[in-house]
Amino acid sequence: MKKVKIKVPATVANLVCGFDILGMAVHEPYDEMELKILETPDIIIKHEDSFGLPENPSENVAGIVLLKIQEHLKLNTGFEVIIRKHIKPGSGLGSSAASAAGAAFGANILLKNILSKEEMVHFAMFGEELASGVRHADNIAPCIYGGITLVKSTDPIDIIPLNAPELFVAAVHPQVEVKTSDSRQILKKNISLKSAVEQWGNIAGLIAGIQKNDLSLIGRSLHDVIVEPVRSILIPKFDEIKAGSLQMGALGGGISGSGPSIFMLAEKQETAERIAQFMKSVYDTIEIESFVYVSKINPEGIQIEEESSSL
Amino acid sequence: MKKVKIKVPATVANLVCGFDILGMAVHEPYDEMELKILETPDIIIKHEDSFGLPENPSENVAGIVLLKIQEHLKLNTGFEVIIRKHIKPGSGLGSSAASAAGAAFGANILLKNILSKEEMVHFAMFGEELASGVRHADNIAPCIYGGITLVKSTDPIDIIPLNAPELFVAAVHPQVEVKTSDSRQILKKNISLKSAVEQWGNIAGLIAGIQKNDLSLIGRSLHDVIVEPVRSILIPKFDEIKAGSLQMGALGGGISGSGPSIFMLAEKQETAERIAQFMKSVYDTIEIESFVYVSKINPEGIQIEEESSSL
Repeated sequence: MKKVKIKVPATVANLVCGFDILGMAVHEPYDEMELKILETPDIIIKHEDSFGLPENPSENVAGIVLLKIQEHLKLNTGFEVIIRKHIKPGSGLGSSAASAAGAAFGANILLKNILSKEEMVHFAMFGEELASGVRHADNIAPCIYGGITLVKSTDPIDIIPLNAPELFVAAVHPQVEVKTSDSRQILKKNISLKSAVEQWGNIAGLIAGIQKNDLSLIGRSLHDVIVEPVRSILIPKFDEIKAGSLQMGALGGGISGSGPSIFMLAEKQETAERIAQFMKSVYDTIEIESFVYVSKINPEGIQIEEESSSL
Repeated sequence: MKKVKIKVPATVANLVCGFDILGMAVHEPYDEMELKILETPDIIIKHEDSFGLPENPSENVAGIVLLKIQEHLKLNTGFEVIIRKHIKPGSGLGSSAASAAGAAFGANILLKNILSKEEMVHFAMFGEELASGVRHADNIAPCIYGGITLVKSTDPIDIIPLNAPELFVAAVHPQVEVKTSDSRQILKKNISLKSAVEQWGNIAGLIAGIQKNDLSLIGRSLHDVIVEPVRSILIPKFDEIKAGSLQMGALGGGISGSGPSIFMLAEKQETAERIAQFMKSVYDTIEIESFVYVSKINPEGIQIEEESSSL
């Protein structure tokens, strides 16, 4: 394979009660990436979007991943990557993870599946480290594996793919800036054992609900007594959007990643669409621009759109 | 139904990482209970064992449960209960839960299944409250539902039955006293968010492993970074028994309930039996008497041995 075009989906990390361990792939928004093998050892990054991201490979999330793969495999060849990013950086929808996971996944196709999924996650985490300073896989894992994933450990890498219930996801990205670093710093270092027990009851319920496809149990488990009460303060109108969405029939939902995006799960597409309109209307009222997305949980993750053996 | 004889199993609460939310029924040891309807409103408790437990119904774990059921249903009739207890009080193997759950379950049979499982749990919790001061259902739930249960909440009662993997359980009860109250007091009120995240990764892995019947994942998830490091101090030779059992092929294990019993899971009966012998030998060396039990995870919980319509 000399050239591959892939569709790299947005991902929702944390999934309410699963702080730092759970993530889920959706269909919308998504990035498009085209990767080519180069006969020379160069890594060339071209962004065909308007986010002004650095194109120097060692400063680019996709670039650093490719450099690490090239180094590890002692390749004499290089890669050219064209990125058309639609997942907005800083949205909390896994924008950096998409670039990182897409680079690892695309390179692996071009290299005839030389890497395992765990290895792709390993290399993609260098991209997350560049973007946020933290080697985490909450977004990378669902991007590569699809569906809902449990990151049990990143050292060693231990990813557990879970079932992907047939649910719709409504997400809103209000145009406010929440830095991942601020969003981490605001968290308390210590929590009470009592609230930890409540949280792990919800996590256990959520995993059981996902594996049993018990939507009511999923809904009953989507409560976060630890992170959401603190982080939601950084997101305007969070409480109003959450309460309104639940009233409109959402199973549950919360902050996507470290925000500012908010997501809600719903059984029916029409419910998810009405919730998305409602989310947008709340931000319209306070004159904050917002983007909304409605799609199903994406059971496949990254998809190949086109591959060819000639350049 | 006028008379029923039931076999009420021991239960292992917490299941290593699932402090206060998980529990599992085993086959050995078990109590036997015989319940009869009385034409008079008396509650008569007879212990045919040597533990010296009180037989005044309001001071007896089974008695208080029957009093509450009688009161709630405004019964004009009473119950006579004969208890042959083999699950030693204070063992950490759900002795009080067996009496409480057995009373609720037996009464329900005699009353033609008037109660739901949740209602049986509700009434049985009065027995736990009498025994330990805490209305908890970690042992009651697996006793009544069988297999492994998740107690997501006790108010309202929300019990999630999980799959019961075909695993063997080796348990040892060393004859040392660990009071549940001491065992609770020793716990830290606050924990670090970092260790809480590690713990809920393990809980999520354990639930996924149980539901997928992935024994390796179950084993990788049976780690407790919060409760075991503190409570195990109260149990002589805990570290030696755990390390030795793992070396002998145990999937994992830890403190049963709040101790002093220790349990280990194994795929094969012979492994479980060898582990049980080893556990006993460790306590023999330091001249602590101990009892060991080997049985499968019990998917059914309480079983009816005999029922008859005549007195």
